[in-house]
Amino acid sequence: MNVALFQHINQFVAIDESEFAEIAPYFSRQEARKKALLMHLGDRVLHEYFVLSGCLQMYFIDDQGTEHTIQFALKGWWLADYLALQKKKPTDFCIQAVEDSLLLSLSPTKREELLRVFPKMESYFRTVYQIAYGTYQTRMRYIQSYSKEEIFFKFRDAFPEFVNSVPQYLIASYLGLSAEYVSKLRRKSIS
Amino acid sequence: MNVALFQHINQFVAIDESEFAEIAPYFSRQEARKKALLMHLGDRVLHEYFVLSGCLQMYFIDDQGTEHTIQFALKGWWLADYLALQKKKPTDFCIQAVEDSLLLSLSPTKREELLRVFPKMESYFRTVYQIAYGTYQTRMRYIQSYSKEEIFFKFRDAFPEFVNSVPQYLIASYLGLSAEYVSKLRRKSIS
Repeated sequence: MNVALFQHINQFVAIDESEFAEIAPYFSRQEARKKALLMHLGDRVLHEYFVLSGCLQMYFIDDQGTEHTIQFALKGWWLADYLALQKKKPTDFCIQAVEDSLLLSLSPTKREELLRVFPKMESYFRTVYQIAYGTYQTRMRYIQSYSKEEIFFKFRDAFPEFVNSVPQYLIASYLGLSAEYVSKLRRKSIS
Repeated sequence: MNVALFQHINQFVAIDESEFAEIAPYFSRQEARKKALLMHLGDRVLHEYFVLSGCLQMYFIDDQGTEHTIQFALKGWWLADYLALQKKKPTDFCIQAVEDSLLLSLSPTKREELLRVFPKMESYFRTVYQIAYGTYQTRMRYIQSYSKEEIFFKFRDAFPEFVNSVPQYLIASYLGLSAEYVSKLRRKSIS
């Protein structure tokens, strides 16, 4: 039994072990080595990932060849390209493992079946997406309220281990800063 | 019967008129005059709004007294402070009618009951939030890809009537521009 997912579901919807035993086979356990590309630009069969350990990054590359991070998914987060998944269109994004990661993967076919057969999972994902939607509303507040330097420090205070462990170009590509500037901020925050 | 909501639900979940007749009483029809404040900073009882006509704006005021728009909700959109609603915490935002608007309002108590009694509504809101979450992922891509001027023109191309009808300070507070600059862009786009 995957305890992490069982506990995560139970945060929002009460399910017992026998129900979970029926739900669990829908998810595939997947190991992703650091830098493994899980979703490629133009993919049509879009999986949804739950992070058991490690970290995922969703990004795109602009016309100038610069990589921009849309979001990270740390332990206990779900990640997919949700608009493309809903519209059944090819994705404009990539998903990559930032470090060696252990994941649960849900294919679009299994996902449809899971939601049809287990109404509690509709309730679970409704809550997961509601929180993710709300988190973006709060993120917009940060973007509109603070300078990129202030956002770096708030982000570091919220996720200190993450900021210290991932390559600085990734933090830079998330905050829209240069890697050199993030390096300077990181030194400033240590001293 | 509220045809707009019936049709909106049926975009994502099949319900018939007799089911809708049971669901409809959960929503309260509400008229909001231009500038009416529907949600105040610090409110604890957070309603969710569906826009039948008109437009809502969710915003906050920063330490310098400047108003920043987090998002607009046009016809056919749902709007609430979703993180505060989930966590049952007071909101940090305000919701205001941008113009005379006709709304359906769902109270938190009715919402809980609706979701418990009608599993199809879990499925409906799961899809609504999935799309809203995905829309924010796409919005982050815009913010990271384009200049504010380019975003203004893309926004105007996507919602021409909206951009031409609402006060320019609102568009400015959404895009993080000065009202004078938006006025200049709007003149440039007309000529």
